[in-house]
Amino acid sequence: MRISELSRETGVPVATIKFYLREHLLPEGTKTSSTQAQYGEEHVSRLRMVRALIGPGGLTLNAVRRALAAIDDPPERPYDLIVAAGSAVSPPSAGADHTEAHALLAAWGVDPATDDCSTHDDLAVALQGLDAAGFTLVEGALEHYRAHMSEIARFEIDRVPTTSAAEAVRYVVLGTVLVEPVLLALRRLAHRELTQQRFGEAGA
Amino acid sequence: MRISELSRETGVPVATIKFYLREHLLPEGTKTSSTQAQYGEEHVSRLRMVRALIGPGGLTLNAVRRALAAIDDPPERPYDLIVAAGSAVSPPSAGADHTEAHALLAAWGVDPATDDCSTHDDLAVALQGLDAAGFTLVEGALEHYRAHMSEIARFEIDRVPTTSAAEAVRYVVLGTVLVEPVLLALRRLAHRELTQQRFGEAGA
Repeated sequence: MRISELSRETGVPVATIKFYLREHLLPEGTKTSSTQAQYGEEHVSRLRMVRALIGPGGLTLNAVRRALAAIDDPPERPYDLIVAAGSAVSPPSAGADHTEAHALLAAWGVDPATDDCSTHDDLAVALQGLDAAGFTLVEGALEHYRAHMSEIARFEIDRVPTTSAAEAVRYVVLGTVLVEPVLLALRRLAHRELTQQRFGEAGA
Repeated sequence: MRISELSRETGVPVATIKFYLREHLLPEGTKTSSTQAQYGEEHVSRLRMVRALIGPGGLTLNAVRRALAAIDDPPERPYDLIVAAGSAVSPPSAGADHTEAHALLAAWGVDPATDDCSTHDDLAVALQGLDAAGFTLVEGALEHYRAHMSEIARFEIDRVPTTSAAEAVRYVVLGTVLVEPVLLALRRLAHRELTQQRFGEAGA
């Protein structure tokens, strides 16, 4: 199909498609003349993925590029795949102080020394955020959070597709990014539900 | 203290403090001359909060402004407070299609018609993100997510401080924003741990 049809098919304006092509988020079509190219179904699905990662996924262009790179050239070991998906979404932050994160991991029986340290960055940054705001979690909160997030992760890892590496990567990368807003929305929904039950007040 | 001391105390550059003052994220100090003002401890703690909301919280300036407004002028009813905290973080998105979110809520025994619809926006947007990417959750995933996020929310709502309205608001607003990155970091950490256990591979 031509770029105009690709635009109609996906609802993405032609100018935006051209921008993605220039930014290498979308592979070139097959040139049919010096000014025209043909696009296929792979462009349709790639375009949908880019839109989802940028829009609801809330990723920056660079993060989308990293996520697509992980999908296009999947690491062989499942562990590397999970790390790649995570760092596609939130790149390692050079300045993060790991002291608190490491203390926590050690308390949980994870030896931080034998672990890939760049994977502790997002926890380190999140914990520093609490400190910086002078916000102290109530006792037992982190353990409670860890228990439930681990159950969620277990459910997900148990269901990584084993049909093909490409399917597995797609599941992990998109699942990491796109499920996050779902989880956060469900937490807020539950906050409201429980408050309503507890205080017996209906919403407006 | 003068603005230079406020800067030293908080580690925030003077130019940034001036920017926050212009943007009304920080209240004016007490003028001592036409070019000088005095700042107090309330400026120190407000500045720390702004930094935490912008940095690790990842909020936009507008979202910080809404969060601070909720803290400064707390709604009276606990339910409204929870809604205000949620919408400070993610403002209602006018275009969101609620069909799927409402079907889900109805299946879970929540009557969407009696609920404040603007509070369904983030769930609606998150579900549309999955659809847009052509990503189908495995069966039972949403119920699994809901169960665990509800347990997290219950733990939190049970511990809302009742000492003062101001404390409660601060807990809810900061807790909503700053705990989100902690939860997501713990999910990714668990993904890696479980993958390592499952496939018996150590990280680099």
